[in-house]
Order: sequence, then structure tokens, then C-alpha cells
Amino acid sequence: MRDNLSSFSFTKALGAVLVLLGGVGPALRGAERPPNFVIIYADDLGYGDLGCFGHPTIRTPHLDRMADEGLRFTQFYSASSVCTPSRAALMTGRLPIRSGMCSDKRRVLFPDSGGGIPASEITLPEALKTRGYATGCFGKWHLGHLPPFLPTSNGFDTYYGIPYSNDMDRIAGAGPKGRAIFWEPRTEYWNVPLMRDTEVIERPTDQTTITRRYTEQAVSFIHEHRDDPFLVYLPHSMVHVPLFRSASFEGISARGLYGDCVEEVDWSVGQVLQTLRDLKLDRQTLVFFSSDNGPWLPFRDHGGTAGLLRDGKGTTFEGGMREPTIAWWPGRITAPGRVTLELGSTMDIFTTCLTLAGVDVPADRVTDGVDLSPVLFDNGPSNRKFVLYYRGTQLMAARLGPWKAHFFTQSSYQKDSRERHEHTPPLLYHLGHDPSERFNVNDEHPEVLVQIDALVTEHRQHLVAPPSQLEIPLKTDGD
Amino acid sequence: MRDNLSSFSFTKALGAVLVLLGGVGPALRGAERPPNFVIIYADDLGYGDLGCFGHPTIRTPHLDRMADEGLRFTQFYSASSVCTPSRAALMTGRLPIRSGMCSDKRRVLFPDSGGGIPASEITLPEALKTRGYATGCFGKWHLGHLPPFLPTSNGFDTYYGIPYSNDMDRIAGAGPKGRAIFWEPRTEYWNVPLMRDTEVIERPTDQTTITRRYTEQAVSFIHEHRDDPFLVYLPHSMVHVPLFRSASFEGISARGLYGDCVEEVDWSVGQVLQTLRDLKLDRQTLVFFSSDNGPWLPFRDHGGTAGLLRDGKGTTFEGGMREPTIAWWPGRITAPGRVTLELGSTMDIFTTCLTLAGVDVPADRVTDGVDLSPVLFDNGPSNRKFVLYYRGTQLMAARLGPWKAHFFTQSSYQKDSRERHEHTPPLLYHLGHDPSERFNVNDEHPEVLVQIDALVTEHRQHLVAPPSQLEIPLKTDGD
Repeated sequence: MRDNLSSFSFTKALGAVLVLLGGVGPALRGAERPPNFVIIYADDLGYGDLGCFGHPTIRTPHLDRMADEGLRFTQFYSASSVCTPSRAALMTGRLPIRSGMCSDKRRVLFPDSGGGIPASEITLPEALKTRGYATGCFGKWHLGHLPPFLPTSNGFDTYYGIPYSNDMDRIAGAGPKGRAIFWEPRTEYWNVPLMRDTEVIERPTDQTTITRRYTEQAVSFIHEHRDDPFLVYLPHSMVHVPLFRSASFEGISARGLYGDCVEEVDWSVGQVLQTLRDLKLDRQTLVFFSSDNGPWLPFRDHGGTAGLLRDGKGTTFEGGMREPTIAWWPGRITAPGRVTLELGSTMDIFTTCLTLAGVDVPADRVTDGVDLSPVLFDNGPSNRKFVLYYRGTQLMAARLGPWKAHFFTQSSYQKDSRERHEHTPPLLYHLGHDPSERFNVNDEHPEVLVQIDALVTEHRQHLVAPPSQLEIPLKTDGD
Repeated sequence: MRDNLSSFSFTKALGAVLVLLGGVGPALRGAERPPNFVIIYADDLGYGDLGCFGHPTIRTPHLDRMADEGLRFTQFYSASSVCTPSRAALMTGRLPIRSGMCSDKRRVLFPDSGGGIPASEITLPEALKTRGYATGCFGKWHLGHLPPFLPTSNGFDTYYGIPYSNDMDRIAGAGPKGRAIFWEPRTEYWNVPLMRDTEVIERPTDQTTITRRYTEQAVSFIHEHRDDPFLVYLPHSMVHVPLFRSASFEGISARGLYGDCVEEVDWSVGQVLQTLRDLKLDRQTLVFFSSDNGPWLPFRDHGGTAGLLRDGKGTTFEGGMREPTIAWWPGRITAPGRVTLELGSTMDIFTTCLTLAGVDVPADRVTDGVDLSPVLFDNGPSNRKFVLYYRGTQLMAARLGPWKAHFFTQSSYQKDSRERHEHTPPLLYHLGHDPSERFNVNDEHPEVLVQIDALVTEHRQHLVAPPSQLEIPLKTDGD
């Protein structure tokens, strides 16, 4: 339909959306203001770490209320089990392998990385800018810390946050050696910079107040842009190790330090939703809460839990990539408090937001997101029928309906399975009957393996994988 | 104050309750009718098997609503990880070892058992009869199938149900051999009797309709006794293997057959609560939902899940004895939808009901239950400060506040740990920080081990353990 977003045409976009939706949604009537979007993204939060997802000792009243008023997903996935590729997929609606934002050598970007999200990618804020959205990013970016890769070079009007993970930039010689540095976290052990737009404004970042400060920045932005359509992206640094929380959250959780941090993130969600209510924007705003990947299990009780799901961060078991996800839009999400078993992905947030904003999904490239409107607003079946589980550039597993086939497995912590194992035929689990991936039934359902094989073959026919951005070193001379 | 319940005096009881509660509760004002009690007890349901406890594919809208309107416990225990002792404790408010209702040789009663709940025990319905309650039991009893042990000999006016587990009385030669008989359950493989009061009225029991029929009987009883105070005990046979459900629940759950069965139990809960609403008894009735023990993990996807809790049925890990528990009493339970992290036990149901009914707790014996009123009605701290985890007559573990010490461990299914292991010093877990019992911290907290040792010493000083009822064989001549 068109080559790129710079040739955006509202009329054309509206026509496309009409075809897609079979009608005119409330957000698109006449010259009505399109909805606001808020995406709150936790870091390393496990599927089982919220009250409304069954945690016995972490209290999350604000997220529980968000679920009571909204829609809770039990089958919602990130596109990767580690940070950088997961966030690249969220921002582009595309599998990380299509943007070069994954690697088999280095799983994420580091302070010594020279790459980042390619300029050729169309990000969610870039797409929404074509419709006049105000866009703000408040939190951990991790899609490249050099100027071309920062949020303000990729569609965000403003940025306040840390450019990569909070455990990077460890100060040489500071704190106890090895993993012990995590057990009694001190902000001065880490040299992570805090940035505003393209400038470093604080280094090391005072991490104890970081959850609160991201929240305050996001709330201010909402106040400032109450009269514009806006996108707020609030990717918390927490609950990634080293764990930090404000003084007022010290020791409040029965779950200990990790729980304190989750409960401060929950507070943050409450602040954002209450701001929307106070400004009477709640009925014009779609809010998603999710996490970039599963819990980091080797970090003892500084890591979270995937609940009944198997394994955690870094793996393509369910615990690594299924996320505790809630959507909220009072007045639009039908039957508040509903739980859906329909499939969703963080990549679908991209496509759903574009569709609701009346912006065409880029037609010159493969997009992996689908529009979740039928699930959100009509209790309908999801447009998403399958999930692909990549680890770096390796397709490890695929889910089709309730069935998941593992071509390869690799655990994050079990001593005997940290090695990669190939499975021929693939291991097959029915995730409806067996959500914990305990009972391989590949010998009973060869027909399912045939279907999944066809899905993977089809996927590979259209796959173009550019060189990895994560393997590009930082130029040390004159950069 | 008095020797036994036969010398019951309302005035004395009221005085005692006034002392305990520090005031007169609504149920006790003047000659007001005391509250009704309904106890719905699932069989082998895991901590993680309900929607409101985080299951991703089982839908339990009625239990979720019960939690939304009531109080959800995340730290509520049965007194045993297997059926007979768990139920004995529920009925008596006492550890099974005090009534002889446990054994190290046979963990539960079988059709060839000659023992059962001793006449000297004071059961919940016996205690409530002294205050004029109508009492009905509808479901699986499992406290002895000979006449002196049946419900109608132990305080219930009426009984409708099966006297022991639904997998006992396997018909010789019927069905596939070994465990395969469970995979395609047919009612005709099992010879379990259905009883009304003391008579067998159907054999084999048509198990496909059993959840529905228990429910109908309980609902009828409530209708009949709408003008009396009543106790309804509804211990479902489900979701114990072999799994059965009514035709209308076939294939409805994304969790498969097991999910169908849980969802029919959920339907049953909905029927009971709606009956109470329809009869305008909801504000006069305290309802508890819980389970006798954790999920039976070796039964593949015919067994449930304990969610993030470790292990399951038969063990003294959390998955064996922590139960998904909800209390409901519209108008009395404060802040509907609240979740409590306070400790509770099925034995506390006994003491709480007696207290609310204005019946003295028996003073001539040790009772292990505590009154949960402060937790239920005042968001207060629990009177329960510790939990003892018995396996047969062996004290395996003890919880004090958030700390749990394992003196012995024995897994239900892990090949290398089915043997019993003694731990000196005990393994120590912080169940707040580490609900999955992953990180032993006994070397860091010797002072906690000292406190727990003192608790156990104190407990043993007052322990009288009569001979086991579970080791008494059935007399085959003339019985």
C-alpha cells in the first residue's frame, strides 16, 4: 500500500483499518482523538509474581485492581527470554531475528556494544508520531546506548532512564566478588548512567529512588500531554538484580527485598492509573502491563517465580517467555475482571496500538504482531494462532494452539540440562492440559508435529535475518 | 469449665464466648439465631488449581467470585497430606495423632479396615447439635465405613455419599491393569457404594453424576432447613482419581478431564452460594472452601498442581498440605476481595464455628484449632502462630511464623528422594521469601531452629497418641 510511514495518509490508513475491523471503532469516529497508550513493562518479573497470578506472599493491590477492571491474559508471551531482543520486538512488532536484535554469541547489548536498533526499523512511537502522538519513554531502554539508538532517535519526544541493565557497568573492585555483590545491593557498586534525552544527568544512578522517579516523570508527562494523544512507555529497571527500592518500601513485603521491589512497581502502576482517572483520561487510554521475560532463577530469592510454569529467564520453556499481562481500558474492555486464555504477544501491542490509532501497519516488511482488538473488546478469538520461541537466532520451540513442540531445550539452572539438547522428534506438550511441560506426548500425536513442522517451514520461507547488532563492538577510538 | 458437651449450658457458653471475643458478635445478640456453616471440601485439589490462585487454564468463576466477595487465604493448611487424617482433623479440630486417625503402616482407611473415628471424639456436628443445628453430610466421608463410624453415628442428621475414596473397591479383573485403569475412567470398573445414612443405595456408584448429586442433596437440605441453624458438610469425591464429571461438563475445560472436574466442583460452589442468596441466608452463613490435601502428582495430568509450592499429596512439603482456601460471609467478612497472609488450618474451622455458634470448645482434651474470627472479621492477626506437619505419627516439619524446619523429608515422586531423609540440623526455609522451599538457610538462622525446637518440645509434652484406628483389620466372620 505504501513504502514507508513518511508517506502516511490518514484517508488510506482509515480505509485499511475499516477493512481490518469491518467497521468504525469508537476511537476512529470522525475526527475524534485517537486513544492514548501506556505500556508498563517490568524487568525479569515472573509469571507467578503478582497477587492476581497467584503469588502467596507478594501483595499487588494496584495490579489486582487493574485486572479486576480490565482483562488478565494467562497465555501472553514476550518474543524473547532475555532483555534486548524482547524490547526490540515490543517496539517493532517483529521477531528480534528480523531486526538483527539477537545473537548466539551475546544475548543482549552491553556497555561495550556498538550496535542497537537499526534506523530502518519502524518503532511504535515512530508510527504513532505520524498521527500526532506525544511520546515519552521513562525507564530502561536497552536497545543501544549510542546516539542513533537512543529513544529520542527512535520516535520518542523525550527520554528519562538508564540505557541498559542495572547490573552492567559494575565498578571495578567495588563490593564483594562474584555474585555476592547482589546479596546486599548498594547503589555505589554500579556505574550505570541516568540519561535525559541524549545526556547523562547522573552517574552512578541512585537506583534506590529509580522506580519512584520513572513514575513521577511518566505522571508529569501525562499531565503535560493531557490534551494530546500520547504514548507512555514505562519500562521499569526493577525487578532485575541488583534489587533496589525507595525507603518507603523497605521491608514492607512478606516476600522480602524482591517483594518490596515488586510492590513498588505495583505502586507505580497505581499512580499511573490514578493519574488517568484524575484527568478523566481513563476512558480514552489503553494500558498494558507485562514483563520482558521470566524470572532470573539462579539469583536465589532475588529472582522471582514463574509459578507453575517451567524454568525461567533465558530459556524457551514457558517460564522464560510467558508473562503476567493485564490490559486496562475502562468502558472499552468488556466484562471487567475477565480472564482470557487466548494467545497474545508483546509484538501484538504494536499492531493493536497502530490499528486503534488508525495508523497502517508497515506493508513493506514482515510484521509478527496481530491486532488483539477481538480479544480485548469482543471476548472473541485471538488473531494470534501460534508462538515462535527463539533463543538468539535458533528457533527452539513453537506453539500452535495448545500444542508446543520443543526442537531444542536448554535449562537455565538445572545442572544436568544447561547444555543444549536437540530433540528428534521434537518433545510435544499440551499446554492446556499440562501447563508445566511435564508430560511429553510426541508419540501419541504425530499429526500435531506435522502441523507444527508445516508452520515452521512456512515461517522460514519468509525469514530474512540481517547481521546481528549485538555482535558489533564499540569503537574505542574517537567515538 | 465443664467436662463434656453433654452438660452444655447456653449461659456458660455465652459467658465463655464473651470472654474470648471481648464483646457480643451479631450472631450472639440475645436469642438471635446463630450463623449457618457450610464447609465445601474438595479432594486432592492443588493449591494452584483455581483461577483465583493462578491456574492458567482452569476456569473457576464461582470460586473466583466467592473470593471477590470473601477472603482468600494464601497460608491455610490441612492437618495431613492424605485423606483420612485430614478429614479427622477437620471434624475434630485436633491433630490426627490425638484421635488415632493416622498410621505409619496404612496412611488411610480402606474397605478392609475395621476402624474409624472413635466415639470419644467430639465432632463438629456433634458440638453444633448441642445448639440445635441441623446437620447434613453430602459426599466422601472416609472416617470409617462400619456403622459406628458413619456420619449419622457422629453428629450428622443425614448422610448421602461414598464412605471412602472413589478409587478403592476396584472390581477384580475390570479394566486395564495397573495405573492404566485411570486413564480412561469408567464407572463400572469400581464397586464403590453410595450410601444414604447407613444404607447402601447404589453399587457401583454412578460416579459421572456424583458431583451434581451431592450438590443437589446439599441444596435440598438448605431449603429444608432454611429456618434452622444448619451445618452443611459437602466433601466432594472429586478431583480424586478416577476422574468423572457430568455429561454437561464433558470437554468444557482447556485443562482437559481434570479441568472439567474442577469446573464442575466450581459449579457446585456456585449452586450452593446462589441458594444461600436466593433464600436470603447469605448474610447469616459462613462458608469455607478448602481441600483435604495437595495434588496427586504421580497421576500425570489426572492430578492437579500446587502452583509454585513444592511437591504434592502425601508429602509434608508445602504442596502436600497448603490448600486453596476461601471464606465467605457477605456483610460480616470485612473488605470483600481481601487476601490474607495470616496462618489458618482446617482444624481452625472447628474452633471458629463453635465460637461463632456460642458452643464451648471441649475443655477435657487438647484442641489444636484456634478461632479465626480476628482474621475473618477484623483484618487482625491470626491466633494461629505455628503449623505442625505430620506424616502418620512422625512429626516431619514445623512452621513458626514464616519459618519452616524439616526434620525429615520424603518426596512423592522424585526418584531420588522417595526415601525418607533425616536432617540434622533440620532444613530451614523462609516461606515468605522462598515459598517454593528452594533455599535452605539453616546455617544462617540457628536462633530460629532453637525456637522451633522449643515449640516441638512443648508440643510433645502434651501429646497423647492412642493406638491407630487405621491398623484395625475388618472382622470377616459375622461382621
